[in-house]
Amino acid sequence: MKKEFIYSEITNQIADQIQKGILKAGDKLPSVRKLCQDYQISMNTAKRVYLELESRSLIDSRPQSGYYVSKPILINLPLPEVSQPSLIANNDEPNELISKVYENMGKKGLTIFSIGIPAGDLLPQAKLKKEIINATRELREGGTGYEELQGNIKLRRMIAVRSLQWGGNFTANDLVTTNGGINALSFCLMALGKFGDTIAIESPCYPGILQLANGLGLKVLELPTHPTTGIEIDTLKKVIHKINICLLIPNFSSPLGSCMPDENKKEVVKLLAENNIPLIEDDVYGDLYFGPNRPKCCKSFDTEGNVLYCSSISKTLAPGYRVGWIAPGKYKDKILKLKLLHSTSSISIVNEAVANFLKFGRYEKHLFQLRKALQDNCQNYIKTIAESFPEGTKTTRPQGGLSLWVEFDKKIPTVELYDLAIKQNISIAPGRMFTLQNQFENCMRLCIGLPWSDEIKFKLKQIGTLAKTI
Amino acid sequence: MKKEFIYSEITNQIADQIQKGILKAGDKLPSVRKLCQDYQISMNTAKRVYLELESRSLIDSRPQSGYYVSKPILINLPLPEVSQPSLIANNDEPNELISKVYENMGKKGLTIFSIGIPAGDLLPQAKLKKEIINATRELREGGTGYEELQGNIKLRRMIAVRSLQWGGNFTANDLVTTNGGINALSFCLMALGKFGDTIAIESPCYPGILQLANGLGLKVLELPTHPTTGIEIDTLKKVIHKINICLLIPNFSSPLGSCMPDENKKEVVKLLAENNIPLIEDDVYGDLYFGPNRPKCCKSFDTEGNVLYCSSISKTLAPGYRVGWIAPGKYKDKILKLKLLHSTSSISIVNEAVANFLKFGRYEKHLFQLRKALQDNCQNYIKTIAESFPEGTKTTRPQGGLSLWVEFDKKIPTVELYDLAIKQNISIAPGRMFTLQNQFENCMRLCIGLPWSDEIKFKLKQIGTLAKTI
Repeated sequence: MKKEFIYSEITNQIADQIQKGILKAGDKLPSVRKLCQDYQISMNTAKRVYLELESRSLIDSRPQSGYYVSKPILINLPLPEVSQPSLIANNDEPNELISKVYENMGKKGLTIFSIGIPAGDLLPQAKLKKEIINATRELREGGTGYEELQGNIKLRRMIAVRSLQWGGNFTANDLVTTNGGINALSFCLMALGKFGDTIAIESPCYPGILQLANGLGLKVLELPTHPTTGIEIDTLKKVIHKINICLLIPNFSSPLGSCMPDENKKEVVKLLAENNIPLIEDDVYGDLYFGPNRPKCCKSFDTEGNVLYCSSISKTLAPGYRVGWIAPGKYKDKILKLKLLHSTSSISIVNEAVANFLKFGRYEKHLFQLRKALQDNCQNYIKTIAESFPEGTKTTRPQGGLSLWVEFDKKIPTVELYDLAIKQNISIAPGRMFTLQNQFENCMRLCIGLPWSDEIKFKLKQIGTLAKTI
Repeated sequence: MKKEFIYSEITNQIADQIQKGILKAGDKLPSVRKLCQDYQISMNTAKRVYLELESRSLIDSRPQSGYYVSKPILINLPLPEVSQPSLIANNDEPNELISKVYENMGKKGLTIFSIGIPAGDLLPQAKLKKEIINATRELREGGTGYEELQGNIKLRRMIAVRSLQWGGNFTANDLVTTNGGINALSFCLMALGKFGDTIAIESPCYPGILQLANGLGLKVLELPTHPTTGIEIDTLKKVIHKINICLLIPNFSSPLGSCMPDENKKEVVKLLAENNIPLIEDDVYGDLYFGPNRPKCCKSFDTEGNVLYCSSISKTLAPGYRVGWIAPGKYKDKILKLKLLHSTSSISIVNEAVANFLKFGRYEKHLFQLRKALQDNCQNYIKTIAESFPEGTKTTRPQGGLSLWVEFDKKIPTVELYDLAIKQNISIAPGRMFTLQNQFENCMRLCIGLPWSDEIKFKLKQIGTLAKTI
């Protein structure tokens, strides 16, 4: 309790200074370390203070630099509320809406804000092409044969090496490759879920996960989720007896972009392990942090092998290569069996190419550029939204990832906005896609993976203009 | 009835002439057309006569040439019996055996008769490598982006064009691509099967199918299966009220190598449609016919959209590319949804490469050579078995595909033979792997996809020698 008190005390104190204009827009704040010393608090508490201030849109973090007081325009654009889904498992899948959004994506000349992947221009296409060619040369039998079941050993080694940087600490033998991230999640859900079991997830949640769980006959329990810090752990505790599996995107979740603080990750991992509930962790956005450091994952705090860590290169390198992986902990045998049954082998050529690309720091260099581009995009999007969207609009301020979550005034239904926008050759993702309940009708997700340009700015403004007509 | 009578009458007449030495080893038999004229029978009946004689090991078909009386050595090697599985759905999965066989495959220097794919030497590796490189050049964004959900349009068109040759008559729009053939089957089973449903299959059956069905909670009903003509339709009729799905490999099934005659295919399709039972047809071996013509598939006789036709290039071109497809008939929407949920997109590069390879007759040329190699292998294997396996050994005489099914005397358990063989660096697939019941303990499958050589001959002989020690 004392710790909680100190934390809000300091947060409010700084917030007050900003609102009263004592700290001005653009002012640099003390470093986290300095804050610790000044207030005699722990690093974790200091980080939480800044995270909370960020979540209130009062301060900004700039990579390699530190924290700054936000410009007033951002201060006027508040965060969406913590979601309040019903805690009764629901399965009201918005099938027609999803089909409509999906089918329309084939339209020519469409500006697609509705799909959560980086645009091709942001990817190292030429270098990957070379690696594909190298792969056909280096692989035994030109890659025409099956791989070993667990997956390309070079790729698994490279993933293991990278994981040391952020506390994953995998060995190559801990990992099983899959055909992309969704295939990783699908294997985990098939391995763990029995028909009728209940799975707890974030709300709003990536539609692929909702549909996958629903399609496998699992009941879906949506948890209240904070736009900055992720699921509300107190609620998870309350419903813990009702659930069999938990699936989270702890780092820069889609669509909210929330990132669970380390202590929350630790607490959730402990809570679930104590209750014998496996945690599926989807970390596909983990490398897309805007801050100075890559966030840890829940798996870092897992001592029981109870976390099934899933990731891929679909959000960072080449969605079309379908290269993903699982560190399944104690469920490895189950996952291997499912892989054998449902896909036999990953596709050698793309896996070998990615393994080679990951060598020699090429991936780090690319990620550095991609993160920079996404962060710039994010700021430009938010600025444009603040300037041209209807009054009362709220938006997330993600510290990484590929999505912005926008909440309009209650009287603006985004399904209606979708229909107006598609006529102008713009595709958005209405909030209703991200839940199996009747909520988020006035919300939408915007992908920030499109390179910034006058045209994108114009299209964004157009969404705002259309929203004002409703 | 009259037709049945004529058919056995003529068959027995010719068999009699062979056994009495009136027709001698190597003698050419009249063409099918000539047989029609001579006996005033239909083409179908004439074909069945020769098929039956072949199944009795009395005659051989030679591609582009016709039918010949077999050499005595083959006449002394009878066919295995029609299988007699229990008709009670069973799920006694031989897990440990499968794991053991699978894990041992990693052993260095092993001669692997236990996996059903063609060896790399029989595949057009260099040409495929070129097509991979072309694919990275031709594809939008170098293939780093997602494909359209239904799959690469060029590939679907090429498959559709090829299907015209053998009565498949698909259009590109009828097809959905998948990550290999097993992924096609997995989507079909997930689309159609509810937990607790019963699926009817051939017995013995490819272990991947048994495990997949079992893994999805389906009850497996194994049907008595003839080594030449496939499942016994009379039994299917008897159990039709008990089953919800039927899955067959009508052309050169693994492991039996049986090929259902056209009239059987037609009858099964009709029977299942009348009873509203979907048929999943696995046709991965269909292009590997040794006779003059590619056999039709069940889908050719499907007027209701009730057959889900699955195939791939894994048995003919590049197992490691994982390129497969489904023509799902009226279940297309369900399959598309599953593909979206479980894999989002196929992998553009390998699909584009295969599409390009299929153009300009390159595939036909390759298939011609591959079929020739496999048929030669098959004859060499059978000859070696006849010469060096214990007395009382029976073996199939497949007219296509990649497998031989060998039945030893009852006192030779192949699980024991497996252990002896693996010590000599030889891997076989014991019969128990191909059923969920206690049967086929004295059987094994041998893959004929290894290029013939003195070494392979030596290894085969060694299996025979080991079997004699039991």
